[in-house]
Amino acid sequence: MKIGLITIGAELLNGTRTDTNASWIGKSVISVGGSIHWHMTVNDTNESIVNSLNQVPEDIDIILCTGGLGPTHDDITPTVLYTYFNDNPLFDDKYWSLLTSRFKSRGIDIPESNKNQAMKPEKGKIIPNSIGSARGLHFKNNNYQIFAMPGVPSEMKLMMNDYILPIIKKISKIENHVKLIRTTGIMESALYEIIKPYFRSKDLSIAFLPSYTGVDLRISSHTNNILVSFLDVIIPLIDKYYYAQDEIELEDVLGAAIINKNKTISTAESCTGGLISDRLTNTPNSSSYFKGGIVAYSNLVKINLLNVKKETLNKNGAVSKEVALEMAEGVRKHLNVDIGLSTTGIAGPGGGSKEKPTGLVYIGLSTTSYNKVYKFNFTKNRKINKLMTSQAALNILRNYLKI
Amino acid sequence: MKIGLITIGAELLNGTRTDTNASWIGKSVISVGGSIHWHMTVNDTNESIVNSLNQVPEDIDIILCTGGLGPTHDDITPTVLYTYFNDNPLFDDKYWSLLTSRFKSRGIDIPESNKNQAMKPEKGKIIPNSIGSARGLHFKNNNYQIFAMPGVPSEMKLMMNDYILPIIKKISKIENHVKLIRTTGIMESALYEIIKPYFRSKDLSIAFLPSYTGVDLRISSHTNNILVSFLDVIIPLIDKYYYAQDEIELEDVLGAAIINKNKTISTAESCTGGLISDRLTNTPNSSSYFKGGIVAYSNLVKINLLNVKKETLNKNGAVSKEVALEMAEGVRKHLNVDIGLSTTGIAGPGGGSKEKPTGLVYIGLSTTSYNKVYKFNFTKNRKINKLMTSQAALNILRNYLKI
Repeated sequence: MKIGLITIGAELLNGTRTDTNASWIGKSVISVGGSIHWHMTVNDTNESIVNSLNQVPEDIDIILCTGGLGPTHDDITPTVLYTYFNDNPLFDDKYWSLLTSRFKSRGIDIPESNKNQAMKPEKGKIIPNSIGSARGLHFKNNNYQIFAMPGVPSEMKLMMNDYILPIIKKISKIENHVKLIRTTGIMESALYEIIKPYFRSKDLSIAFLPSYTGVDLRISSHTNNILVSFLDVIIPLIDKYYYAQDEIELEDVLGAAIINKNKTISTAESCTGGLISDRLTNTPNSSSYFKGGIVAYSNLVKINLLNVKKETLNKNGAVSKEVALEMAEGVRKHLNVDIGLSTTGIAGPGGGSKEKPTGLVYIGLSTTSYNKVYKFNFTKNRKINKLMTSQAALNILRNYLKI
Repeated sequence: MKIGLITIGAELLNGTRTDTNASWIGKSVISVGGSIHWHMTVNDTNESIVNSLNQVPEDIDIILCTGGLGPTHDDITPTVLYTYFNDNPLFDDKYWSLLTSRFKSRGIDIPESNKNQAMKPEKGKIIPNSIGSARGLHFKNNNYQIFAMPGVPSEMKLMMNDYILPIIKKISKIENHVKLIRTTGIMESALYEIIKPYFRSKDLSIAFLPSYTGVDLRISSHTNNILVSFLDVIIPLIDKYYYAQDEIELEDVLGAAIINKNKTISTAESCTGGLISDRLTNTPNSSSYFKGGIVAYSNLVKINLLNVKKETLNKNGAVSKEVALEMAEGVRKHLNVDIGLSTTGIAGPGGGSKEKPTGLVYIGLSTTSYNKVYKFNFTKNRKINKLMTSQAALNILRNYLKI
């Protein structure tokens, strides 16, 4: 089903805000058999909104619209729509009482300007909003249905999930099953080579979405069985790289695996500067397995807190296989945990040499029974190197925990 | 000057990519006296692109266009534009040789598919691209000029900065001076109250851009003197909160200040889990002043590595003023640096109590002559609490370094 999108707001045109609503909506309608075929971004003026409505292509069945439902003078979307769809809005006493008491419970006198949010259409419908004061609007004409939502992402998503997507699904009568498969440590082309032989059904489509932390696959089919069978075949083949489905992060997958194995962990970070422990502690309750970390930026800290030997540093340099190993061992013993994870590398932009170029990274993993160091060559960019190193380290840990 | 924007690509409509080019372009044209008045996002099909060109409003002088200049079969923008603007493109032997040798130097045989990137218009102009193979296109008709750029952000920005923005500036004859003023630790409304009395010139506009790490002010004027005088007046008034101009990060400002004062620093992080050291080490050459950090997630690490007293922990709990202070002192002494910075708090989502709710945070600062603890109440969200705590801690350090 062909869907149109109108995103309203001067802040989108003048670059004050990036339109993340548009990409969220673009993704979400696919799962109910829709797709965005037409998208205009317009100023919050009567003329701009009306112009966009006049230009809606004939083959569009549904218009989604975000922004301009707030209480200030910039928020004119409802007024424009009431006129455009010949509706005579009424004041909704019941909703105004509700809003007034909601504000009161937060100790705020409701401003008069909120009154415009208590209007309701005569012919159109109201889309409920349980987390904000701006309700959505739903109109029909001979050509299409239109749904107007607030620009606040959480409120827009609520209305999409609870009200609009079910309606689109009902009309489209198309089921579309979508899975995001997340991988790391493998190039897009290599991943493609592995799964290509199994890509047989015509009712199966794959998008490769590469980023610095890995390649996500968005796989969809109109038939759930086809999707599930395909996943059953390919996931074992990419097991070393595959870490999650949907929007789950690598650190959250890891957290569950560490708890499952009843292990504790600590980090000794040089080039990543604390990014790995930051990511590990993004997971709620990570304190049950992550005991702490040492960011050993100077050699003295490596020696004093991680027990890295002076000779090892002198002989091999701080960025070396040997130092990575001693760091991982050192933090494991010093913090008395099961697993020590370490990084040392040349983050850049400067500091590289011919022998040890910017982007050279060693990652160490130490347990009582197992010690290993992994070597990588990443980029010339400091932040990207930190990010890629943290992802590689977490994936090394994930693969270790499967043993 | 009124500018139109056409962003091309199925990935923008189906949500695979968020259109960050649009907001960057929206911002950048303002500085040369332009503003985006019309924006369509379209599929990479001939029909969609032609439809958008047919709908360009009459009052638009310049059309900017991104996407579809690559070598694959999806990249049809040049073909569509050649036809639309009645151009007869020619094969550019010189550019093809250049591309071939560029690929060769990277050890790659140039694919035949790149040949379409070696076409050049007969009447239109080429926009150079020093960092990629896709050159831009520039056409004129009776109504407007159109500039087509690649969708790759770095290549788009290069063409905007070097070729397109200078042309817009020349035509618009409008100077627009824009400054971004970055603040943290103050609410939008309080900031507004401080600067409101000085907001006198009609040729001055301000946008307030709040985020979790602070409020940015985008201030613009057509007259540089008005802008500069206004900044001269307000910056001293907001000194405690103002940390940078333009897109500079707090950690980079801090780095320069620490070097300037010839100090060294270390961190002892509990609730922030390494985020502060991660941010500090995002700054190139931070190793000259940041010696290392201890992420003390468990009490045992606080005791063993930071010398926090057992009695202090037992009496006050890990989230307390007293522990924050001992952590900051401990890391300063243990790592032998001038400044110790610490955090302890209840990051959430769980773990809060009536006395110590989720979001309660203490930040400690310790030097040989100065010890202080700061208390905050942030949110219920773990990642937001970590981010807000890191920003508050870095701002405390920034204000200390001014003493």
